[in-house]
Amino acid sequence: MPDQASCEPAARVGIVGAGQLARMSQQAAIGLGVELRVLTADTNAPAVQAGATAVVGSPDSLDDLRNLADGCDVVTFEHELIKPELLTELAQSFTVHPSPQAKLMAQDKLHARQTIAAEGFPVPPYASVTDLADIVGFAEQHGWPLVLKARSGGYDGKGVWFVDGEHEARQVLQQASDADLGLVAEAHIRMERELSVIIARRPGGQTAVYPVFETFQQDGICREVVAPASVSAEESSAAQQLVTAVADHIGLCGLMAVELFSTDQGLMINEFALRPHNSGHLTIDACLTSQFEQHLRAVLDWPLGDAKLIAPAAAMVNVLGPSNGSDPTRRLANALSVPQARVHLYGKAPRPGRKVGHVTALGKTRAEALDYARRAAAELIGYE
Amino acid sequence: MPDQASCEPAARVGIVGAGQLARMSQQAAIGLGVELRVLTADTNAPAVQAGATAVVGSPDSLDDLRNLADGCDVVTFEHELIKPELLTELAQSFTVHPSPQAKLMAQDKLHARQTIAAEGFPVPPYASVTDLADIVGFAEQHGWPLVLKARSGGYDGKGVWFVDGEHEARQVLQQASDADLGLVAEAHIRMERELSVIIARRPGGQTAVYPVFETFQQDGICREVVAPASVSAEESSAAQQLVTAVADHIGLCGLMAVELFSTDQGLMINEFALRPHNSGHLTIDACLTSQFEQHLRAVLDWPLGDAKLIAPAAAMVNVLGPSNGSDPTRRLANALSVPQARVHLYGKAPRPGRKVGHVTALGKTRAEALDYARRAAAELIGYE
Repeated sequence: MPDQASCEPAARVGIVGAGQLARMSQQAAIGLGVELRVLTADTNAPAVQAGATAVVGSPDSLDDLRNLADGCDVVTFEHELIKPELLTELAQSFTVHPSPQAKLMAQDKLHARQTIAAEGFPVPPYASVTDLADIVGFAEQHGWPLVLKARSGGYDGKGVWFVDGEHEARQVLQQASDADLGLVAEAHIRMERELSVIIARRPGGQTAVYPVFETFQQDGICREVVAPASVSAEESSAAQQLVTAVADHIGLCGLMAVELFSTDQGLMINEFALRPHNSGHLTIDACLTSQFEQHLRAVLDWPLGDAKLIAPAAAMVNVLGPSNGSDPTRRLANALSVPQARVHLYGKAPRPGRKVGHVTALGKTRAEALDYARRAAAELIGYE
Repeated sequence: MPDQASCEPAARVGIVGAGQLARMSQQAAIGLGVELRVLTADTNAPAVQAGATAVVGSPDSLDDLRNLADGCDVVTFEHELIKPELLTELAQSFTVHPSPQAKLMAQDKLHARQTIAAEGFPVPPYASVTDLADIVGFAEQHGWPLVLKARSGGYDGKGVWFVDGEHEARQVLQQASDADLGLVAEAHIRMERELSVIIARRPGGQTAVYPVFETFQQDGICREVVAPASVSAEESSAAQQLVTAVADHIGLCGLMAVELFSTDQGLMINEFALRPHNSGHLTIDACLTSQFEQHLRAVLDWPLGDAKLIAPAAAMVNVLGPSNGSDPTRRLANALSVPQARVHLYGKAPRPGRKVGHVTALGKTRAEALDYARRAAAELIGYE
């Protein structure tokens, strides 16, 4: 079948980054007939293994970014680690979604706080701090312990410190100074639970909001997610409305995950990711349209899919590289012996603590779904 | 991340063929961390576009088949078109699932009829026929019209003829003789509906059976599939048991789809496919474990996944290249405006009548699911 056996792809999308988020985007791209190109230094990165076309290069090089963008309908991201000024430059010649300005919400925590606080959206008390006097002053108002955050570059608990007193504050200041990081101080919020709301928005304003998910972190790393969150219908609806209002305010195009604190004083906005997010991995198996497909549809300005859950409850458990350095991929068959589990492996070397896969399960209840997912994840991790 | 950023795949699977079945297998392989290699002459075939590794070659060449198998944990198929003697030879040095002997059930219709009739499984009356006298003799016993089938090589209605009288029989005999095809005559069965039962079986005997699907053909081509089939619980259970018994009898390893006639005298077995099958495409979106993942798990001798429906009802509509030659892929955004639809494109040139994609939808009822799927499929096909 040499002549015209295949057709032109429905679209070409460039992704800056080629890790597990781009890998799962490739699964979604296949169904849509979309060709993915990924910017990476590693030609065996998770997304490239999965079939995305590697464009070898660095997100720090404008030439490499242009090389990625050339011939693509749109350029988007799987991480935050791109210099905003490069994005702004890139966006002058190519379609970039989300826009460099919107993307700043995930790249600069001070900018994000200021932007949403100015609109009256609920955020924890915060302040930009540059020295010990600033921090002590903030603590006098809001008490110890407080939270210090690097303005940019943090993920999976890196760049966030719980600080209880001047001694600890001094240590973080030193670290931040060594790494040339700006700091934001935030009041430590006593929360009841952590929520995540994921929304997709098209340039024209069409939105699709996922049900509210509940996330469970350990050492700042997301470990488990359940859906729907165990909050009232009112709080759930308020969370979705809040995130929709933020998406409209920043002119979002693409997917945004917003982490929220549920407190006895109501909802507060914590962090933003303007891309598919770990809290949304369960959407692959538990929602009609996965967050990965939804992100592609949004940045391509295609109609969004139904975001509803297709089961009463769902749960996701992350699989982190075990401390003994063994490889969960070698235990896949054991995990598959839980027939209700949906296993997702990322093709990544199992460094201890590194996210190398996840397991999702559906259930009549959150507890049932969580039980299936935990059993399969435990098999992968190889607990004795 | 140059050193050890990625891990070895969980397994390597070779597939003879690189069309849409291998393409959808690649989607499933990504989640399992499995590397797919596909034997194809076309380095832009649907599965290669999706990220499977192309091994360039022909299924008619033993050297090419060996080249595919080398380094793979198992070799399997997405079609029937491989000479049985080559498979037998290949299986002497490599793991091949299903076995060449089992695969014959899908490659030789006379062999399939004889094998299952000998065990007392219900089949339509049939006979091997070589000349007009044979056919007329068969018609005297079972009446006109009758069905003539090429023993091998048929698909999508090709190789099947409804024959009403000697004149038509003579034409088919001539065609078959020109193409050097053996023929089987079968009584024309007055059926109430056509069913499909898909089963996966591991070497050790573990099986997973999907719910009974109902298929709707036009000109011998599957056009729509709904699940569950509108048959009684007893008939559904009988169909699943029948297919399980056949799978055990032939020592199946892998996936098998069995087309059944539901008649007023009970179930009759029609055709076999020993691979993922068009009637099972809805399993991607409507079952916990897709037929593509299930096939990989079965041939790799990994525990099978739960095959149940995750919605009360589901429907799949095939998208065939329209008669005006236009390309459904160019109308994707229109189809996505049906938010409940799950669109799957194959990256194939839209020759008229060629399967270039499908749409699946879930629903509270079969009618609801079918309505969503038909609406999106109609947008792709571009009906005025």
